Amino acid sequence: MRARGEAQAGNGRSEPVRTDSSASSRFRERPLLAVTVGDPCGIGPEIVLKGLADERAAAARLIAIGDERNLRLTSRELRLKWPFAAVVKEVPEERRWDRPLLRDIGSGGENLVPGQVCAAAGRIAAASIEKAAALASSRVVDGIVTAPIHKEALSLAGVDDPGHTEMLARLTGTPRVAMLFWTEDFSVALLTTHMALTEAIRRIRKTRILEQLVFVEKEWSRYLGRRPRIAVAGLNPHSGEGGRFGVEEERDIAPAIEAARKKGLLVSGPVPPDAVFGAARGNFDLVFALYHDQATIPVKFHYGQKAVNVTLGLPFVRTSVDHGTAMDIAGKGIASEESLLQAIRLAVRLVRAPEPAAGE
Amino acid sequence: MRARGEAQAGNGRSEPVRTDSSASSRFRERPLLAVTVGDPCGIGPEIVLKGLADERAAAARLIAIGDERNLRLTSRELRLKWPFAAVVKEVPEERRWDRPLLRDIGSGGENLVPGQVCAAAGRIAAASIEKAAALASSRVVDGIVTAPIHKEALSLAGVDDPGHTEMLARLTGTPRVAMLFWTEDFSVALLTTHMALTEAIRRIRKTRILEQLVFVEKEWSRYLGRRPRIAVAGLNPHSGEGGRFGVEEERDIAPAIEAARKKGLLVSGPVPPDAVFGAARGNFDLVFALYHDQATIPVKFHYGQKAVNVTLGLPFVRTSVDHGTAMDIAGKGIASEESLLQAIRLAVRLVRAPEPAAGE
Repeated sequence: MRARGEAQAGNGRSEPVRTDSSASSRFRERPLLAVTVGDPCGIGPEIVLKGLADERAAAARLIAIGDERNLRLTSRELRLKWPFAAVVKEVPEERRWDRPLLRDIGSGGENLVPGQVCAAAGRIAAASIEKAAALASSRVVDGIVTAPIHKEALSLAGVDDPGHTEMLARLTGTPRVAMLFWTEDFSVALLTTHMALTEAIRRIRKTRILEQLVFVEKEWSRYLGRRPRIAVAGLNPHSGEGGRFGVEEERDIAPAIEAARKKGLLVSGPVPPDAVFGAARGNFDLVFALYHDQATIPVKFHYGQKAVNVTLGLPFVRTSVDHGTAMDIAGKGIASEESLLQAIRLAVRLVRAPEPAAGE
Repeated sequence: MRARGEAQAGNGRSEPVRTDSSASSRFRERPLLAVTVGDPCGIGPEIVLKGLADERAAAARLIAIGDERNLRLTSRELRLKWPFAAVVKEVPEERRWDRPLLRDIGSGGENLVPGQVCAAAGRIAAASIEKAAALASSRVVDGIVTAPIHKEALSLAGVDDPGHTEMLARLTGTPRVAMLFWTEDFSVALLTTHMALTEAIRRIRKTRILEQLVFVEKEWSRYLGRRPRIAVAGLNPHSGEGGRFGVEEERDIAPAIEAARKKGLLVSGPVPPDAVFGAARGNFDLVFALYHDQATIPVKFHYGQKAVNVTLGLPFVRTSVDHGTAMDIAGKGIASEESLLQAIRLAVRLVRAPEPAAGE
């Protein structure tokens, strides 16, 4: 195996190192995905070991990125099969691998305690993400799948991004990203993510909604192979009932929808927030939610492990489990790898979606 | 059958007209419930006809309150069995009835069109609720179950309450009520109901939360027969992550929870809004939600027809279907009576809950 050059994540315009035609090869071969192990003191190591040993993971060629020592300890203590064919320092050229590889980020073997938040764990998590972003930006891998991180640990390690989405946007110099949750029934895209609800409400303005709608629609069209039918959620109870319970629907949301329609988007709403998810089943491809919990409450409660978190707008495909580090059950062997497997499955589908046409 | 006196709904302190001992009779007999038909142009007439013909409705003695002509037309057009033993102008003394009765509110037979919002329909809906509240306030019936109303129709009829909950509070002169959603897994009580989200956020203050927690806990204890285990939802993403995404958790919600604990309440939180409903399953009896959609999004989406809306604090039991008038399918014969049957079932259980001890 020959080492492949690993460029640093830059502004998303870094030149591909790969010399084969990715646009055609992605239809011939299984995509190559980097899987970050996440916070080593959460359930990340456990679900990566379990998930990568599952036959469903064979839909992709996988390279996990994490701390070898931590994974070996987890494997031993939880009596989980070691799923890796080899531990590597670089991603090999070899295109035909049957079992996943592990890219050790070589943290030096700190004493990590499952369930305990610490700076060392934050450093490992951050380094894994940085490495994965670099590999994907330089097209060494086709996309990345992330296991959960703990924000406090990241912060102790000096990384202040509120989440993966924002961190990956920063690492790749991407000016606009959108968080999207994929479910088997429909997907949910968000106008805003990690901020106080009062601040999220302040950002409900016509121009911002319109721009995000156009952006999300274009990104998701590619995956669907057609224009998505979008339902925009209202903000207030019953969408404000004609201005009786709030002004945002009439002042900003409805005008943004009207403007989007004029641009050809297939968009409806504002639909009352407590009706839009039920209405979406079978009728819409995408719900456009206005704030974090408007999306995450129904998605997490109803779809749980079957939902996948996707970042739109990055220069590569990125999916993630839709749950946190679950520190309370870390190291107990009871975490489910289901969401990780769903995230891998969706990443494969996203990588295989058609490339944007030239000029787009 | 002899006519029973029907007092007007007053301030909730009107004297019971019934002379038998309600506290003991409620354990011997099926409760007597008034079922309002709701807006006659919505799906109310259809689900009342279907629901009252269902054998599960026999858990209570029922008297529907609505417009006879409208119900007869609906029965004929949708080929639904007429479920009533008799149409009455007063509630009879007879305690042993096998089939439901209909109390015609005698609107005069306006030309109502299914799916069409109009003042005449609003007047019928309002008159039905007023009659039901009067019957319940005077203890002629043990509780009321309501089919959906349309707020625009009500408003056209000169009734400006934003919902049943507020209207019943006004009719009975009840100073404090709370909206609660019952599901088979847990129930959800609300701090605020029908108002703009910005206004609901302004009302997230320690004293208000504490008062509502104490109120809801006392009311629901009676139904459970023990103190409910309560999880209080946060407001901001991840409950604000220690003040990073908003101040309400640290400034008001956590202090209110602490104060409630000191009063002996079994209360936890603030739990991140997108985790609290999952956490409640099996662990909590009650989720305390801070605004309308925080409760209604997961309840409606996940439990749908199986959820029941309950008003706490009224001088009588009141349950309701957990859906709207569904004007788009009114008159089509495809509406489901499931939620109405659930509401009747829960009302029976609530009526049978122990009376509050003297002095409470």
